[in-house]
Amino acid sequence: MNFAPIYLDWNATTPLDPAVREAMLPWLGAAEPARFGNASSRHEYGRQARAAVDEARARVAAAVGAHATEVIFTSGGSEANNLFLKGAAPNREPGVVAVSAIEHPCVREPARQLRRAGWTLREIAVDAQGVIDPADWSAVLEARPGLVSVMLANNETGVLQDVAALARAARAAGAWFHTDAVQALGKVAVDFRALGVHAMTLSAHKIGGPLGAGALVLDKRVELAPLIAGGGQERGLRSGTENVAAIVGFGVACERAVARREGEGVRLAALRDELCAALAGRGARIFSAAAPRLPNTVFFAVEDIDGETLVGRLDRAGFACASGSACSSANPEPSRTLLAMGVERGLARAAVRVSLGRDTRADDVRSFIETFVRVTDELKNLASIGA
Amino acid sequence: MNFAPIYLDWNATTPLDPAVREAMLPWLGAAEPARFGNASSRHEYGRQARAAVDEARARVAAAVGAHATEVIFTSGGSEANNLFLKGAAPNREPGVVAVSAIEHPCVREPARQLRRAGWTLREIAVDAQGVIDPADWSAVLEARPGLVSVMLANNETGVLQDVAALARAARAAGAWFHTDAVQALGKVAVDFRALGVHAMTLSAHKIGGPLGAGALVLDKRVELAPLIAGGGQERGLRSGTENVAAIVGFGVACERAVARREGEGVRLAALRDELCAALAGRGARIFSAAAPRLPNTVFFAVEDIDGETLVGRLDRAGFACASGSACSSANPEPSRTLLAMGVERGLARAAVRVSLGRDTRADDVRSFIETFVRVTDELKNLASIGA
Repeated sequence: MNFAPIYLDWNATTPLDPAVREAMLPWLGAAEPARFGNASSRHEYGRQARAAVDEARARVAAAVGAHATEVIFTSGGSEANNLFLKGAAPNREPGVVAVSAIEHPCVREPARQLRRAGWTLREIAVDAQGVIDPADWSAVLEARPGLVSVMLANNETGVLQDVAALARAARAAGAWFHTDAVQALGKVAVDFRALGVHAMTLSAHKIGGPLGAGALVLDKRVELAPLIAGGGQERGLRSGTENVAAIVGFGVACERAVARREGEGVRLAALRDELCAALAGRGARIFSAAAPRLPNTVFFAVEDIDGETLVGRLDRAGFACASGSACSSANPEPSRTLLAMGVERGLARAAVRVSLGRDTRADDVRSFIETFVRVTDELKNLASIGA
Repeated sequence: MNFAPIYLDWNATTPLDPAVREAMLPWLGAAEPARFGNASSRHEYGRQARAAVDEARARVAAAVGAHATEVIFTSGGSEANNLFLKGAAPNREPGVVAVSAIEHPCVREPARQLRRAGWTLREIAVDAQGVIDPADWSAVLEARPGLVSVMLANNETGVLQDVAALARAARAAGAWFHTDAVQALGKVAVDFRALGVHAMTLSAHKIGGPLGAGALVLDKRVELAPLIAGGGQERGLRSGTENVAAIVGFGVACERAVARREGEGVRLAALRDELCAALAGRGARIFSAAAPRLPNTVFFAVEDIDGETLVGRLDRAGFACASGSACSSANPEPSRTLLAMGVERGLARAAVRVSLGRDTRADDVRSFIETFVRVTDELKNLASIGA
C-alpha cells in the first residue's frame, strides 16, 4: 500500500504486539537463539519446544485466573467454540442447547450442527440494547438445557453480559455453561473462577497475539470428546503438533494485554466517548449505548446511508473499519445481532463498526470524525441529487 | 542449548526454509512491507490478506497438481485428517470405514470415533514389509466400505503405498478414498489427479513450512460437513480467521519443496543407503528395507538395545532422532506400525528412526555412524557386565 490507512478495526484482528513478535521470532529462526522442534520429540529440540509451550500455558492461565492444566490450546477461537459444543454434546443426554441470539457464527453454527445428534437449538433473546432478556432466560432455564453458551462481550456492539450470574443460574439448572470471551480478553477483566463457567474461549489475534492460537479453558470436571483426535496432545483433547511460535506469542500477548488493560480501558473509553458524541451530533444512532460495553467499540448507523458504502468511502479516505462483523461479512445479510435487538432491517444495513486499540491515538479519532463528516455530507448530497 | 545437536528427525518437524521465513516475516510485522489483516475484512488491510491467502492457495494447488478451489486450508495435518473422516461420514450411510493398520493416530482415532455414529472400523492389514496386504485389501473391498484412508508414505518406516491403484479399486467399490500425504509431500512426487483420490492431506511443517498450516485437497464432488463451523471461511468447510502468515509460508514451502524434490531425493537416498549399510554392518535390522520407501527415512533396531535408551544416549551425544513417531511418543507402547508388520514386541521396542532433510550433510551422517558405533558398543558392554 502507498500509505498506511488508519486501522479502526481492532475487533477483527490486531497487529502483533512488538513484545509478542520478539518472543516468537526465535521460534521462526529469525532471531537468536534460533529454535524449532516438535514438542513431543524426546531430544533437545523437543524439550525446548515443550518447555516453551508449558511456559506459555502458565501465562495464559495466569491472565484469566485459571490453572495451567485447565488450558487447552487450539488453532483459535472458532476451533475452541466448536470443541466445547461438539465435544460436550456426546457426553450429555441429547436435549436443549441454548445459545444467545447474538453469538458469533462459530458458536451458532456448531450448535445448529448438534441437531443432527438429536439436540434442539434454543436461541436466548436479547433486549433492545443487546442484553440477554431476563424473561426469556428464565424460560430457557425451565427447558433444562444441557448446554448453554453466552458470549462475554459481543464482537459488534461490544455489549457485556452478566456471565457470572447466567452461569450460576445455568449450573443450578444442570447445564454446562460456556462463554466465548474472545472479544472481552484484554478489554475488561476476565476471571475464569469469578465467572464460574465450565468453559471459556480465548483467542490470541484479538489481543496483539498471532493468528493460529487460541484456547479453551475448561473445568476439569467436564469431559469432552476431542474435535481433532490423534496423537493425544493437550491431554488428548486436541491432537496435532503444537504450534510453538504461535503458542509462545499467545502467552506473551495475554500477559501484555492484561497488564495494560486498566490504563488502556480508561484511555480508549475516553476516545470512544468523544467519537460517540461526534457521531450522535451528526445524527448517527449508536447501538447499545445504554448497555455495559467494551471500552473500545462503537457500533452505529446513519439512516439512509448504506453501511457497506460508507465503509468503502472511509476505506478510500484512509480509514479501515467494518460493516457488520468481519467474519460474516461475506454474507450480505444485515447484522444478526442488530436484528435480534429488534433493529429494523434498513437501519441494520446502515451499521458500521469502529473498534479502537493500543495504537489508536486521539488524532486518529479526530481525523476519522472529520472524514466521517465530509463523507456522509457527500453521500447525503448524492442521495438528494438522486431524489 | 550450548551446542546445536545434529538434527536427524525431519519426519517429526523441520526448521523453516529461509525463503519461507522471508515470505512470512512481513505478515508478522518483522520485515517491510509490514502487513496484517483479517482476510474477511473489506478494507485495504483485509484485501491484502485475502490476496496473500489466494496466492498461497494457488501455490499449494500447483505443487500437487490440483485446482486452487480444491485446497481447504486447515491448522495442520491432524485437522485435515479429522475433517475428511468426520466431515464425510455424515454424508454417507453409516457402514464400514477402512483404514490401514499403520495409519497415524490422527487417522486411526477419528475413524474409531465414527463408531459412535454407527460405523464399523476395519483395519487393512500390511505385510512384513509394511505394504498393504493384497488379500486383505480384497476382503476389505468386498465389505463395500463407505470410507477408506490409506497413507501415501508412512511416518516411521517411510514405506510408500500404491495409492493410485488402491484408490481406483476403492472408487470402483463405491468408497470415498482419502490419503494422508503429509510425509510424502516434498519427498516423492505427489499428484492429486494421478493418485485419483477423493481427498488428500498435506502439512506445512514437514516440508520447511511453519507449524499451524495444512490442507485438505478435496474433489469438489465430495460433500463434507465442516469440523469447525462458523464464519464460513474456506467455502464453509473450515471456519476461523485465516492464519495468513502460516498460509503464506505454506505456499512458499510447497513451491520450494517440490522444486528441490528430485535433486534432494537422489542426494538423501545416497546418504540413507550409506547409513543403512553401516547400521546393517553393525547388526541392526532395517525395517521395510525391501519395500519402496521415502529417500530420507531409516527405521531400524538393534536387538537387546532399548530404543528409548539409545535415543537418549544419542541425544546426549549431540544427535536428535526419534524412537517411534514423535506424535505418539507420550505412549510407551512399541510402534503400532511394527506390530502390524508382525515384528516381535521386543524388537519393536528397540526401534529408532533417523530421518534426513535439506540441511543434512554427508558429514552429519558419518559422525552419526561413528557415534552410533560407540554408543551401541557401550550399551552392549553394560549389558554384558550386567549379565
